Amino acid sequence: MKSRAAVAFAPGAPLRIVEIDVEPPRRGEVLVRITHTGVCHTDAFTLSGDDPEGVFPAVLGHEGAGVVVEVGEGVASVAPGDHVIPLYTAECGECLFCRSGKTNLCVAVRATQGKGLMPDGTTRFSHQGQPIHHYMGCSTFSEYTVVAEVSLAKIDPQADHGQVCLLGCGVTTGIGAVRNTAKVQPGDSVAVFGLGGIGLAVIQGARQAKAGRIIAVDVNPAKFELARRMGATDCVNPKDHDKPIQQVIIEMTGWGVDHSFECIGNVQVMRAALECAHRGWGQSVIIGVAGAGQEISTRPFQLVTGRRWMGTAFGGVKGRSELPGMVEQAMRGEIELAPFVTHTMPLERINEAFELMREGKSIRSVIHF
Amino acid sequence: MKSRAAVAFAPGAPLRIVEIDVEPPRRGEVLVRITHTGVCHTDAFTLSGDDPEGVFPAVLGHEGAGVVVEVGEGVASVAPGDHVIPLYTAECGECLFCRSGKTNLCVAVRATQGKGLMPDGTTRFSHQGQPIHHYMGCSTFSEYTVVAEVSLAKIDPQADHGQVCLLGCGVTTGIGAVRNTAKVQPGDSVAVFGLGGIGLAVIQGARQAKAGRIIAVDVNPAKFELARRMGATDCVNPKDHDKPIQQVIIEMTGWGVDHSFECIGNVQVMRAALECAHRGWGQSVIIGVAGAGQEISTRPFQLVTGRRWMGTAFGGVKGRSELPGMVEQAMRGEIELAPFVTHTMPLERINEAFELMREGKSIRSVIHF
Repeated sequence: MKSRAAVAFAPGAPLRIVEIDVEPPRRGEVLVRITHTGVCHTDAFTLSGDDPEGVFPAVLGHEGAGVVVEVGEGVASVAPGDHVIPLYTAECGECLFCRSGKTNLCVAVRATQGKGLMPDGTTRFSHQGQPIHHYMGCSTFSEYTVVAEVSLAKIDPQADHGQVCLLGCGVTTGIGAVRNTAKVQPGDSVAVFGLGGIGLAVIQGARQAKAGRIIAVDVNPAKFELARRMGATDCVNPKDHDKPIQQVIIEMTGWGVDHSFECIGNVQVMRAALECAHRGWGQSVIIGVAGAGQEISTRPFQLVTGRRWMGTAFGGVKGRSELPGMVEQAMRGEIELAPFVTHTMPLERINEAFELMREGKSIRSVIHF
Repeated sequence: MKSRAAVAFAPGAPLRIVEIDVEPPRRGEVLVRITHTGVCHTDAFTLSGDDPEGVFPAVLGHEGAGVVVEVGEGVASVAPGDHVIPLYTAECGECLFCRSGKTNLCVAVRATQGKGLMPDGTTRFSHQGQPIHHYMGCSTFSEYTVVAEVSLAKIDPQADHGQVCLLGCGVTTGIGAVRNTAKVQPGDSVAVFGLGGIGLAVIQGARQAKAGRIIAVDVNPAKFELARRMGATDCVNPKDHDKPIQQVIIEMTGWGVDHSFECIGNVQVMRAALECAHRGWGQSVIIGVAGAGQEISTRPFQLVTGRRWMGTAFGGVKGRSELPGMVEQAMRGEIELAPFVTHTMPLERINEAFELMREGKSIRSVIHF
């Protein structure tokens, strides 16, 4: 079948809106009509060419919502008409990782997903006969996309796709990092580095967890108003201080914060986030994705004196088990999604969404088809 | 009073056995007659001059056992005749850290202890009128030493000091790292880097915790026999392999180990220990003390894919609350101390103990007075 799609033909170039060919779903696969998709920094990172795993041409996009159109052989958990969110972190329920009860990092489709292919090693997309790669197992920048059954969360059909698509990545990652990875407790202090969609979601998650002090950190003070609205109690601009930001936060809090979150992907900020964690028990969670080959470092003394360094992917959320419940929380207003959606636009204007993000003018642009 | 002591007069020079003057204990202080003391790598590290906090002249030693001789004003928790183990990690029970329930890193005497002084900022030791510094709040290389009341664990008077002195540092650190920091569960896999006293104690602790596979790693295969006796199931010499040791361990185990422990103080090994931890949930505990200014590093991807990097000091053990129970466990044979004591010698031969340790020929030398 034919599908409108925004295709990344080459690194560094704008997406091109073209009509692509989409093959029917094979065994264990599902054809989904995407209704809405967010545009995330990870899409921009891959498009830039800095992502060592990036392959071109590809249909990017991994933060969407849609409706099942057709299912391949053997697919039992979803049926045509079901409302779904594609998952870049699959949940097969059967691998070592799914069965561990300790992580959401399912490996069922990991090897092929990283290469931009479906689990059988091929692609369902093509343009003028040339194969086009998938992306993160989702490819939500195409109106019709094919995803593995294990990469679909079935959600309440009453949910507003224009909002819950954001639970496909950023908001779930931020809130999940607070709930599942850091396990923030009432009264705990929190520092959040980077006030994009994920950082703001961390702040909202921390407020939901009844954190005490929530310190928002960004070099762009235009982000502070929304951060406060989400629950930040303090906003700090590192540019306003001569000393390292970790020292500023330690002085603000006495001994540092119980939890810090890096939501940028900057290895220097990751270090600062660790070093502003409380002596004895503070923990620091890396959420941002750093450039290829970059490394984090610190003095081991920081860990020997009780700090813990960890990371999270998709907020530790098991998509098929847990995402439907988060959608319901959003429908009840317990997770607030509207403030993240600063812009909406049709697929044809998707390159504007990338521009707005690059300029720090948007939190999330939501694309509709 | 007069006391025989092994004094570190200058960095890099052997200790000198001299008669020093020891002042009576002041308010909140206790005079202890040390009966036995272990010699630990940390003593050698400070003596070498590489320890940026090292001050000279000083009475080193921090792994001892003894008997209370005299108590200063206000001391209520111990009395003359009590058997005690001096603690380099005090437990005041009142500071933010003691009250947190999350850490053993009491700060009551931290500032002065780091400077080689008693809490009032002075020293009780002198030699020919020249002040001599304390060390780690213990100074167990003097027959008579003065320590803060909060730095003393009162133990069963029936305990064998020649063995339980090792609970003052190495053995407690290793076993505590397994129990309190990593919280190893039955069946978990473990890798231990460095088979000195602490590494062997980690192995013993892992066996007590009913770990499944226990992989012992050292470049000195002479250590393997004792490691196996302590509970190691596999012994690996990195020199026998062309590939990085983390890769060797990942291949041995499939996805890495549930817990790894660095017991050397080498920042490259700390990285290897982290990187051989299991994707999704593996955790790596730094126990060794690195040289001044050295840093650990890794790709943040290691943490984003679920590994956790942490550290421990004194195995997370709160000395006054928990050490008496560990002494009782040793008396019941639940903690085995005898295999650690490879050499015993009188104070006069303490420099031999340093030599044996440097040459990798001893696990612990225990000095008696």
